[in-house]
Amino acid sequence: MNTRFYNAKILVPLDNHKYDIVTGELWVKGDTICYIGDGKTDGAADAAPSGMSRPEVPVWDRETDVEGGLLMPGFKNAHTHTAMTFLRSYADDLPLQDWLNRQVFPREGQLTEDDVYWLNILGIMEYLTSGITSNFDMYFFPPVNARASADTGFRTVQTSGLNNYGGTVELMEENYHIVRELSDLTTFLVGFHAEYTTSRELMEGVADLARKLKSPVWVHNAETKLEVEECKGRWGMTPTQLTDSLGMYEYGGGGYHCVWFEEPDFEIFRKRHLTAVTNPASNLKLASGICPTKRFVDEGIAMAIGTDGPASNNCLDMFREMFLTSTLAKVREMDAECISADEILYMATTGGAHAMQLQDCDSLAVGKKADLILIDLKQPNMQPENNIIKNLVYSGSKQNVKLTMVNGKVLYENNHFEIGFDPEEIYRRANEIIGRMK
Amino acid sequence: MNTRFYNAKILVPLDNHKYDIVTGELWVKGDTICYIGDGKTDGAADAAPSGMSRPEVPVWDRETDVEGGLLMPGFKNAHTHTAMTFLRSYADDLPLQDWLNRQVFPREGQLTEDDVYWLNILGIMEYLTSGITSNFDMYFFPPVNARASADTGFRTVQTSGLNNYGGTVELMEENYHIVRELSDLTTFLVGFHAEYTTSRELMEGVADLARKLKSPVWVHNAETKLEVEECKGRWGMTPTQLTDSLGMYEYGGGGYHCVWFEEPDFEIFRKRHLTAVTNPASNLKLASGICPTKRFVDEGIAMAIGTDGPASNNCLDMFREMFLTSTLAKVREMDAECISADEILYMATTGGAHAMQLQDCDSLAVGKKADLILIDLKQPNMQPENNIIKNLVYSGSKQNVKLTMVNGKVLYENNHFEIGFDPEEIYRRANEIIGRMK
Repeated sequence: MNTRFYNAKILVPLDNHKYDIVTGELWVKGDTICYIGDGKTDGAADAAPSGMSRPEVPVWDRETDVEGGLLMPGFKNAHTHTAMTFLRSYADDLPLQDWLNRQVFPREGQLTEDDVYWLNILGIMEYLTSGITSNFDMYFFPPVNARASADTGFRTVQTSGLNNYGGTVELMEENYHIVRELSDLTTFLVGFHAEYTTSRELMEGVADLARKLKSPVWVHNAETKLEVEECKGRWGMTPTQLTDSLGMYEYGGGGYHCVWFEEPDFEIFRKRHLTAVTNPASNLKLASGICPTKRFVDEGIAMAIGTDGPASNNCLDMFREMFLTSTLAKVREMDAECISADEILYMATTGGAHAMQLQDCDSLAVGKKADLILIDLKQPNMQPENNIIKNLVYSGSKQNVKLTMVNGKVLYENNHFEIGFDPEEIYRRANEIIGRMK
Repeated sequence: MNTRFYNAKILVPLDNHKYDIVTGELWVKGDTICYIGDGKTDGAADAAPSGMSRPEVPVWDRETDVEGGLLMPGFKNAHTHTAMTFLRSYADDLPLQDWLNRQVFPREGQLTEDDVYWLNILGIMEYLTSGITSNFDMYFFPPVNARASADTGFRTVQTSGLNNYGGTVELMEENYHIVRELSDLTTFLVGFHAEYTTSRELMEGVADLARKLKSPVWVHNAETKLEVEECKGRWGMTPTQLTDSLGMYEYGGGGYHCVWFEEPDFEIFRKRHLTAVTNPASNLKLASGICPTKRFVDEGIAMAIGTDGPASNNCLDMFREMFLTSTLAKVREMDAECISADEILYMATTGGAHAMQLQDCDSLAVGKKADLILIDLKQPNMQPENNIIKNLVYSGSKQNVKLTMVNGKVLYENNHFEIGFDPEEIYRRANEIIGRMK
């Protein structure tokens, strides 16, 4: 499938987490971006940021007049539990621990692999409407989650939610290989649920496996104040100190949430080159707290943004998360100047890709995989065009997403899905699954 | 124009700020809802919440199969400065006072009445995409703002931004009558900009005018900590105490923002039956603070929700504001249980209407004006349908707005505007206006 986008604005990366917007054409050959430039010269080097010559013109399967819209890299949802779609708006308005123990765990225990497959597809549909082209997913049955992604054409990074109540290190190792071998679109990184749900022996096993597989390790970390206090009570260390002391981070990794960080935690994250994934909507809704985003940025600690699962958020919308990441930092510090819109956009795209080890689809450039979205700028919330990046971060909406392409294939366009499944059938199944549990 | 909606879910009001969802038909005759019920019986009383008989069937100009979508009252944007669209993403990341003095005021000084007309229309277009059917607007040239609303078919309540640098009490009185007489869609309530921009003499004049016109009074109140501290320094009273002491609130009214309230302020708001309008996105972005929403609700003080202007927000999206109003209350109190989704939806619709004295379009019921929107529930973020009201508040998006009707007339449907203006022309003008000032 070869696609030519013309009359486009194109968001291209600069140094230092900044972006430029060029006008012209973007060409996709198969699954890869093969040209960004003015499209006018033939064979000679042109104004493309790559500085490359225009390649031979492929036979086009599709030529799209973008009409001045913006092509940009797809959002990377760096922390989620996709299949939790079935619990959306089912159990709300409870603090985290009650919500987990009274509402979530008893129902999750009833899920079959088949359920999880269909619930993943519902989540993937929602990702596509929000311009998300890959997710970093922690849930039961990683091979099933990965299969839902591969079947719909969506890119996924799976990790394990291993804890005392489910899973083994051996099963994680098996899943690691199954998911990585399933498809070009599916990969796996080592992880476990959280310190407060996992024994020291299991955590030691995770650390051993990470070293064996040379994988980073990912875990929920310092989501609530209670979690950190209890961890310190048990071990005399914060979750970051404890996991680091077990040798988890030889190959990097990071934490999800990272709200209640203490001084030594920042130092460990800096020293180990770990990434803090913020989940602002979920942290508000469960009354967990507000992430110290400015401190992470000031210390040069890598950040990415995730929606968390649809049962705690309750939606999978990276525009909402970008606005929250930015403005919660401002109000937390009582400093309206803190953190630029470019930095937020970086976290939501390139930063997320790097956290997920997706270097080959982190930005729009020649040779990168074509994981991109088309933003309609001719809508009132994107006008006037004083600053397109600020418009995206402060004013952008899922409504502006006209097209979502993953690996060179259009999966969503003008409110229609091209994923090989009938949306009505997916909605019917999701309602049926939760209906069984009521 | 007579419209029949069938196969609909319909959000109807119950007592105590709660809602029910019935299924059936909603009929609009001219500008008024004339029937809500199952549509099946003829002449006999049916299951309509109104308990009314089905009226004689009008000649339909339009019959719409809603296909299980939700009809609900349009959102009431209870505080905004619509024409500030020209400054969207132009001056960001500054604290309120700097932002006003260095960026906003110098450019506003260059605006012509013609500019303000076109900039209003851009804002109205954005309202329609977000299911907003009326705005409570404070800006220069209220008669021009009102004309833009009347010309597009949008409902507006204008107030005055009178302060030491512009306007007089006499001009406000003149505008009051001009706007009220212009159209069924336009009205006016007394107001002024803020204590910190307005002399005591002017404020006394406002109070006199409010008593003369029997109007409530509206004003920015306690948006920033600095504002309250400086007011107490000048007068030994908070802005609420000062304005109350001047006899402003004999006919009610309220405050925009209401972030930094002190004990006596809550008491005055309760005693005078004033409304607190919260503007959460703007308060975050300008690092002003987080509104004590739970306290207002617990004390039975009426609340409404506004976007504030597009230069400080930067968008006009009531879904984002609903989510923020709810979840910022939760994180401020560190209590995930605080404030129900029904209560938030009430603030955004019925509560806003009452603040704006729009009793005749505050809900969907027979005899009310047809200011309503159609929400597409067959989108992934609204599935499964565990709880439609929670889905709206926690997961809803502008993307779900299929149709916006004001006063019985469809102004927006499936991403197309029916407002008598070409969107491209409006965008061109908005870019031209700010272009002149660069």
